[in-house]
Amino acid sequence: MRQSKFFMPTLKEAPSDAVAESHKLMIRGGYIRQVTAGVYAYLPLGYRVLRKAESIIEQEMDKINVPEMIMPHLLPATLWQESGRYKKYGPEMFKLKDRHGRESLLGPTHEETFTEIIAKNLKSYKQMPMALYQIQTKFRDENRPRFGLLRGREFVMLDGYSFAATRDQLDEQFNDQENAYKRIFKRAGVSVHPVIADSGTMGGKNSTEFQAPAAIGEDTIATNEKGTYAANLEMAKSIDTFKQDPEDPKELAKVATPDCDTIEKLAKFLDVPATRIVKSILYIADGQKVLVLIRGDKQINEVKLGHVLDADEVHEADTKDLKEITGSEKGGVGPVNADWADKIIADETVKDLYNVVVGAGETDYQYKNANLDRDFKVDEFADLRVANEGEPDPVDHLPLKFTTSIEVGHIFKLGTYYTKTMGADFLDQNGKSKPVIMGSYGIGVTRMLSAAVEQHLTERGVAWPKEIAPFEIHIVQMKMNKDDQTELAEKLEKKFSEKYDVLYDDRKERAGVKFADADLVGAPIRITVGKKASDGIVEVKRPTDAKATEMSIDELDKFVNQELG
Amino acid sequence: MRQSKFFMPTLKEAPSDAVAESHKLMIRGGYIRQVTAGVYAYLPLGYRVLRKAESIIEQEMDKINVPEMIMPHLLPATLWQESGRYKKYGPEMFKLKDRHGRESLLGPTHEETFTEIIAKNLKSYKQMPMALYQIQTKFRDENRPRFGLLRGREFVMLDGYSFAATRDQLDEQFNDQENAYKRIFKRAGVSVHPVIADSGTMGGKNSTEFQAPAAIGEDTIATNEKGTYAANLEMAKSIDTFKQDPEDPKELAKVATPDCDTIEKLAKFLDVPATRIVKSILYIADGQKVLVLIRGDKQINEVKLGHVLDADEVHEADTKDLKEITGSEKGGVGPVNADWADKIIADETVKDLYNVVVGAGETDYQYKNANLDRDFKVDEFADLRVANEGEPDPVDHLPLKFTTSIEVGHIFKLGTYYTKTMGADFLDQNGKSKPVIMGSYGIGVTRMLSAAVEQHLTERGVAWPKEIAPFEIHIVQMKMNKDDQTELAEKLEKKFSEKYDVLYDDRKERAGVKFADADLVGAPIRITVGKKASDGIVEVKRPTDAKATEMSIDELDKFVNQELG
Repeated sequence: MRQSKFFMPTLKEAPSDAVAESHKLMIRGGYIRQVTAGVYAYLPLGYRVLRKAESIIEQEMDKINVPEMIMPHLLPATLWQESGRYKKYGPEMFKLKDRHGRESLLGPTHEETFTEIIAKNLKSYKQMPMALYQIQTKFRDENRPRFGLLRGREFVMLDGYSFAATRDQLDEQFNDQENAYKRIFKRAGVSVHPVIADSGTMGGKNSTEFQAPAAIGEDTIATNEKGTYAANLEMAKSIDTFKQDPEDPKELAKVATPDCDTIEKLAKFLDVPATRIVKSILYIADGQKVLVLIRGDKQINEVKLGHVLDADEVHEADTKDLKEITGSEKGGVGPVNADWADKIIADETVKDLYNVVVGAGETDYQYKNANLDRDFKVDEFADLRVANEGEPDPVDHLPLKFTTSIEVGHIFKLGTYYTKTMGADFLDQNGKSKPVIMGSYGIGVTRMLSAAVEQHLTERGVAWPKEIAPFEIHIVQMKMNKDDQTELAEKLEKKFSEKYDVLYDDRKERAGVKFADADLVGAPIRITVGKKASDGIVEVKRPTDAKATEMSIDELDKFVNQELG
Repeated sequence: MRQSKFFMPTLKEAPSDAVAESHKLMIRGGYIRQVTAGVYAYLPLGYRVLRKAESIIEQEMDKINVPEMIMPHLLPATLWQESGRYKKYGPEMFKLKDRHGRESLLGPTHEETFTEIIAKNLKSYKQMPMALYQIQTKFRDENRPRFGLLRGREFVMLDGYSFAATRDQLDEQFNDQENAYKRIFKRAGVSVHPVIADSGTMGGKNSTEFQAPAAIGEDTIATNEKGTYAANLEMAKSIDTFKQDPEDPKELAKVATPDCDTIEKLAKFLDVPATRIVKSILYIADGQKVLVLIRGDKQINEVKLGHVLDADEVHEADTKDLKEITGSEKGGVGPVNADWADKIIADETVKDLYNVVVGAGETDYQYKNANLDRDFKVDEFADLRVANEGEPDPVDHLPLKFTTSIEVGHIFKLGTYYTKTMGADFLDQNGKSKPVIMGSYGIGVTRMLSAAVEQHLTERGVAWPKEIAPFEIHIVQMKMNKDDQTELAEKLEKKFSEKYDVLYDDRKERAGVKFADADLVGAPIRITVGKKASDGIVEVKRPTDAKATEMSIDELDKFVNQELG
């Protein structure tokens, strides 16, 4: 491709509203341009990277025998009313009415559409296992689109769906997909941690997120240094190393604790460590009153709580509800005689404690010397706490490290939620009707590109991993009016174009402009054709090289083959 | 690809609402499924055909150095308000509001978006000529979506735009595109006529439509048998062969002509041929009162009229306006003393007539013996008439033939309309600011697939042109429990997959089911592996062959190379 014909408007400065380095690079390099908030045009350079990423996905899906298809963007509301998500999805859904007043939406995801097509066309166990995927533009009306392609309102996703007659088939499909995803990210040069994302309600390991460490990441993952443990912070577990020495139970005693609105103040006022206090917090989970207990030095993780309770909606009771239900204000609430609670659930840190402090059920009063089972009951123990950096991981007991990261993929054993709701049944070997068992699989393709840039920034531009580089070789001719340079550059362009994607800078621009643009293109190999062209000598530089190296044409051939294979 | 893993739900019967043969075939063959009115999912088989067509386009655009990019679907209303099309576009535009109440639309076409990006980034004559294209999903809220992919509400289009500093550059770009389009349609196996579509307002040949003859086509084109003339019926020209012998002008005479509300009745009543009558019809063109004259045996072509008048909006005056403006009802209107007319324009057939009948400006009265220049004036003569089948074409004077056809492409010299309105200026060699000169180029990609099917139907299915066939070779194994068949089929699958797209029917289905499905897949070569597998003998059939031919493996190799190249 001749650069003179290649629309690639570069900028010296990124716009002031660009925060993420990947966003700045893509704007400066002429990869993308914003058309409206969170909505981008992919200019030729950006489009090439996008297509390369899509092509990797297509090859890897082929390998696991999953055919590609494409669903429409415009979907009828009726489909989402059937699954119950039309109202639930919230303001991120773009809704519209057509000329006949029929309600429609722009697909933010496609579980319903795939389930519907399967429900109508997949009728027998003989047709399974079966899987499908699409690479498609999705629409989500983000409240605050930001960071370029990282959180846009229109973006490209791979979404795949598997259909199985048995759990074993699903497990195998999930496994195939997980391995394919690992290969995809590896080939795209995006370093990822597959992390535990969700303990789910189906038992076992049902969901894996692929998290790419990056400074701009909006997620946080917890890992250990050996890489044997990785989890989204929301789901991260840690070993609790605190141990209280056993004591004889003392007599329960009510004490006034005025102005103690934090654990710190209460511990100081009573002169006890926070580990001797049990916090009691009232949650409303799908309308149920759930009292949650946790040791004073720990924090409740509401995601874990939601999973354990298997509730659609969990929130802490507000001041008014708290008073009405418990008779006490915050701080005074406790588990003793808490008959108003539908359930009392405690973090594991509440086990094996003696003579603790708990709320006395009355504003500004606590009980001292409370003991589990004697003074209060717990219906269920679970891991409900936030893991902290430095605590031992649950696998190798190494200190947890926290890293910001970008969620680039997510695979999920959906089970029969959609197929049951939408009536996608099949006949099994015995002629019995059963709901199809689904899995869903997703990669944020445009987001993956941002992650690749974030992980491969150089001082002046980017060093694209070779399989997603917009061009593999960038030939830069120094002076367009020198015939020997033109002759050599055209010869190299012709030869390398047979096997590689080549960009040839044939513009009548100054060397400084050409090099600056080349840093933004970030091709794995830059070949400069300059003064020594007539001697068959060029300068070669990789984006991460400190400086260019002179090479003969023969050496260049060898170098190119070695680098690009 | 193994057919057992390939989601391809076939049907014995097409749905009753499918009228077009291409629509029936694509539904029956499991190429597409409707998700909502005029909105389709492309199942794996349909998606493959779509991607093949896109790939041809990409290769041909590469050849003329036009890079690919992609614009967003979601566009801000402001962009279209700037060009003035936001209101003009009408109810075919899908409009929506985002969560912050900002007006948006789904792109039905992208002139504005490209002009805007060029306006911001293309500043110098040095950057031109430049062209760009995208292959993208478009949205148009058709009032009555029909014929499957032919008239859908969500469809895939190639739309390209060129940017030039001079008319010469534009002409060259237009020429390159026209040739690329011809190659694209040829490779896709779609027979097209490039037809004159619009004489436009820029002079010269500014617009070419690519029309694919097909029974279901909604357009009509006029061609001659030699193929030297082809035009959309809206723009077709014909030679007028009628000649009136010269006569001396007679005296103008007013006659009552009651109940003559058609030319036929009037001709009979006055006992003259229709060729001696001149019809006068009042049009309102952008508010101007234009009286249009045409010989009695011809009809006015309003598209031609609109072009000649260079008017945005042209309509025949209604009964009330007609009476108010001319003083007469229909039939009585005429050009004599028609001072109320802003302009009198006549078809060329009104020239060289003597002593004709024209309306007398009074209901139910006509003038006899009216003569041009003596009794009435004409401001402008032009070709304003509808061409009729059988009339001589304007090139080789051969009889015009009318054919229904599908518009699959349209290329257009846009000029400076958008760039002037939206301020896309560049600095020329002399540092003078000028508007960029644009061209626009489009192919209805999904529509092109319908045209391909319409043109390549077989008795039981379709015979895909090889470059867009979903698979090039279809291996059909008769019995899956015969090891010799499996061995040979797998061997052939492996060998041919190295070079071609192969579908291998490995399903445990009856031969009848497999053959019926194979007719719908329509691969250029079907290889049946059956009873004689152990002898190395297979049966080979092209979709258009009446019956299959037995071949040895060696003969098969030769045949495949010869057919697929």
